[in-house]
Amino acid sequence: MKISFIGAGNVAWHLAQAFEAAGHLICEVYSRDSQHARQLTSLLYDTAIQPDLNFSESVADLILIAASDDALESIIERVVLPANVMLVNASGSRSLSDLQHLVEVHSDVPVRTGVLYPLQTFTKEVSLDYSEIPFCIEATDDETEQALIKLAQTVSSCVQLGDSEERRNLHIAAVFACNFTNHLLSIAHDLLEHEKLSFDLLKPLIRETTHKALQSSDPATMQTGPARRSDWATTSRHLEYLQELNPEWAAIYRLMTEDIRERHFEEE
Amino acid sequence: MKISFIGAGNVAWHLAQAFEAAGHLICEVYSRDSQHARQLTSLLYDTAIQPDLNFSESVADLILIAASDDALESIIERVVLPANVMLVNASGSRSLSDLQHLVEVHSDVPVRTGVLYPLQTFTKEVSLDYSEIPFCIEATDDETEQALIKLAQTVSSCVQLGDSEERRNLHIAAVFACNFTNHLLSIAHDLLEHEKLSFDLLKPLIRETTHKALQSSDPATMQTGPARRSDWATTSRHLEYLQELNPEWAAIYRLMTEDIRERHFEEE
Repeated sequence: MKISFIGAGNVAWHLAQAFEAAGHLICEVYSRDSQHARQLTSLLYDTAIQPDLNFSESVADLILIAASDDALESIIERVVLPANVMLVNASGSRSLSDLQHLVEVHSDVPVRTGVLYPLQTFTKEVSLDYSEIPFCIEATDDETEQALIKLAQTVSSCVQLGDSEERRNLHIAAVFACNFTNHLLSIAHDLLEHEKLSFDLLKPLIRETTHKALQSSDPATMQTGPARRSDWATTSRHLEYLQELNPEWAAIYRLMTEDIRERHFEEE
Repeated sequence: MKISFIGAGNVAWHLAQAFEAAGHLICEVYSRDSQHARQLTSLLYDTAIQPDLNFSESVADLILIAASDDALESIIERVVLPANVMLVNASGSRSLSDLQHLVEVHSDVPVRTGVLYPLQTFTKEVSLDYSEIPFCIEATDDETEQALIKLAQTVSSCVQLGDSEERRNLHIAAVFACNFTNHLLSIAHDLLEHEKLSFDLLKPLIRETTHKALQSSDPATMQTGPARRSDWATTSRHLEYLQELNPEWAAIYRLMTEDIRERHFEEE
């Protein structure tokens, strides 16, 4: 398949290379920041830097939008598409009907729309095994749906259909399970740094926490800690200390403790 | 060493078996819930169920308190100790001076106090490799300190001294890195369940998130997601949905997003 990218951030960086490695041709890369487009194309075999959003001369079968959702409106308003191209969003959070509606309003030619959402955290510097990344597919017509399934299956063995409601929940769940957990680990790091202790001390605990959660069908069954065992003397002391050190961390501590309490209170 | 336990919860469950396997003798186990004491002693070689907190006849060198911090005052008020025993708390959050003060007020005989804090999450059903668990040691006298270091080293290769301030930060960091991250995973599980999606879909993402954080010296450098890339259109849509579904989850989402924003805003 011939694929062009709108966006050259973390997601485009990984998918462009993965699709190329699977035998697809990456025609063009466009990015608001031309430096980013240059960096990504330099890693690809025969890919042009697309200077603007005029894709009318593109021979791509599929244009993949891998950009911030904030930018979607402005991209669709300005993009010029060849007829019958597939315009596909790599984001989990926008509905397909949003995309379809925007395209109908702004495009002069018929365009087929779809979503191809890889459920993974992408960092440019960190390489990945794509074969087990779940890809969630949705399209406005059967032909596009089949094309996207086939494309995703060239890099992953975990491809499934999912409508916009399912994808929204998947995306929010991913924000909790990945982005927010990583932020908690950053806070833990800073708490240790405050006492000049190494983050390495926490690593066996983090490894074990994840290991237990991955073994379980519901991590709630693995919940431990002061809030779980109703140890309010400890949570009060922690809160008092955090309030002094960093009120935002105290607010997070309070809210998480309260939510664990409520959830497990019902069980007792 | 001859060791008795006050408490038969997750921590006592693991430590008693680990110390016995390392060649120590577990003399007695006391628990408020005698059923718990019975279950734990049944797994040990030659350990008596201690029916009450009168340890005056105990031959133990060390009595390890592995109980909820809430219970510490009431335990020390009621416990009767043999002279010169080491009374050691396995909790990370109470200061050694707190323990020492309580003992001085309530005990008729001289008692040596200390803390032996294993930085790990313990669940009865899940077995552990103890050798890499960090043990954090503190004692009121050198002899007790040496005895606790020696004891911890019989099960772990990561034993270090830590005063009460360091231990408090370690414990709070552990609550963020383990208890709170596990709770976020539980919320992610529930979000998927709401759309009848399998928690398995998230497992590659969770594995990769942890993998990246463990490779890094500071997980903040690995932060991704809508808050990190200032994608406020997405965070607003997520919040709107969560507010309907579960206002507590919306509150957690709002606070975490705001804290990620503030932290990474400074970097840009």
